[in-house]
Amino acid sequence: MSAPRKSVPSKIPSRKINVLFSAPGPVYDEFQPAISAALSAEGLDAQVAADLPPAEVDYLVFTPNELITDFSVFPRARLALSLWAGVERVLHNPTLTLPLARMVDPGQREGMVEFVTAHVLRHHIGMDRHILSSSGWDQVAPKLARHRRVTVLGLGELGGACAAALAALNFDVHGWSRRPRTQAGVTCHAGPEGLEQALSGAEIVVSLLPNTPETEAVLNARTFALMAPGAVVINPGRGALIEDAALIAALDGGQLSHATLDTFRIEPLPEDHPFRAHPKITVSPHVASLVR
Amino acid sequence: MSAPRKSVPSKIPSRKINVLFSAPGPVYDEFQPAISAALSAEGLDAQVAADLPPAEVDYLVFTPNELITDFSVFPRARLALSLWAGVERVLHNPTLTLPLARMVDPGQREGMVEFVTAHVLRHHIGMDRHILSSSGWDQVAPKLARHRRVTVLGLGELGGACAAALAALNFDVHGWSRRPRTQAGVTCHAGPEGLEQALSGAEIVVSLLPNTPETEAVLNARTFALMAPGAVVINPGRGALIEDAALIAALDGGQLSHATLDTFRIEPLPEDHPFRAHPKITVSPHVASLVR
Repeated sequence: MSAPRKSVPSKIPSRKINVLFSAPGPVYDEFQPAISAALSAEGLDAQVAADLPPAEVDYLVFTPNELITDFSVFPRARLALSLWAGVERVLHNPTLTLPLARMVDPGQREGMVEFVTAHVLRHHIGMDRHILSSSGWDQVAPKLARHRRVTVLGLGELGGACAAALAALNFDVHGWSRRPRTQAGVTCHAGPEGLEQALSGAEIVVSLLPNTPETEAVLNARTFALMAPGAVVINPGRGALIEDAALIAALDGGQLSHATLDTFRIEPLPEDHPFRAHPKITVSPHVASLVR
Repeated sequence: MSAPRKSVPSKIPSRKINVLFSAPGPVYDEFQPAISAALSAEGLDAQVAADLPPAEVDYLVFTPNELITDFSVFPRARLALSLWAGVERVLHNPTLTLPLARMVDPGQREGMVEFVTAHVLRHHIGMDRHILSSSGWDQVAPKLARHRRVTVLGLGELGGACAAALAALNFDVHGWSRRPRTQAGVTCHAGPEGLEQALSGAEIVVSLLPNTPETEAVLNARTFALMAPGAVVINPGRGALIEDAALIAALDGGQLSHATLDTFRIEPLPEDHPFRAHPKITVSPHVASLVR
């Protein structure tokens, strides 16, 4: 998933290699020893540290938070490796002229698949009813997954894996991507007119699109209205994919029955944000897919 | 899955065939027209009804509830087809001397797989925390499914399908059956000593054993103690597989962290049953797998 900006020099320096590892404490503590050991095992003389002089940095490994905003201070750097699946904090940074690689490890993909299949199945079988109340004996059986239409927006590394897992669970899976794709077991749609087809009649919608100017507020009053009445939206992608006020209006009006949100326009989600108190919204703290 | 008691006569009577369909109203209303139409499409002159004179019944289609307890009143019957996956109400009935078939349709199997995978994933990712509270921003990521040990007790038609679905979701799946079995992706155990191995260290246990004298209260204080501390029990099998008082003690003592129960020793579960009010028990009204 790399997006090369210029060609990578072929020779590794013969002197000690300086790898700047810029990440929050817990991530640093977990990964730094492993990266050092792996480089050493490859016979490379490298130091991996958080506090190297910028002018001496050869490689950057970073999480795209506030720690690094200006890449021009690393004149010698040959490659930047982002530990995040999301690209919105780096793609449009004009100071980033060196090659960029994005880490998408099996753990991130597996975590996302487990989060998405868990919440799709939760809404599919209607388990909240039983979690929230243990009285009564109302034997309403959910319909089977093969009769449940689930639409996954975004068929990249993460969305494609989720669509595959849902198809394996027998769901009637539709997928949408900007450019045409094909995937076994998934009815694929593409482009602006394909979005309408993908969402029409969808009962559960999972949004896993990248956050770009084109996907800003792709879930809005118009697209909510395309979905089946009482549809559920699950957003482990990016907060900016949803128009917040339109979501609340669709839930209040009954067009949507629930939203399970793992990502938000502001994170951490403020305690007084209306999503927090809404009875039809489940808030999870951006845990669907973590680097681990 | 038939258990023949005597050989089936080879000739179908040339007169009108009488099929007694004994089932609760909603099941009757759904299936009766379909069965009539299917027999007619096969060129058979049959009537399918709930109120035939017992002496004139040729075939029985029934749910093993209280409606039919004495099969000796049907001297002419050639076959009994049970619509339930469970066998406890019929296997030991001494009046049942005619051949017995048990219906296990794809819908029952799919419904069970969807219920079980939904609840295993629910406990795996810890979603109750977010369903029950929308405050805070505690980014505790669950471990990945490949590090989560799930044990399925019973590897028959339903248990085997659930074990396969859980293995496809990457869980570390162990299975137990009375007689030795093998299943791809599942570490299989068998027999009394195998039960101990299957449960040792299990973090989520799904019980899908048939209800027989050998499986009565197989989940008890001794077997709960084998599981990982804080284990979760999911019982869509039969209520009698669990020793009720031991379950409550294990939850109260912390050996188990939760139980999700779909079957009970008495159904419907009485409103004053201690399971109803227990904060660590989810009660669902026997909906995991319905004839549909």
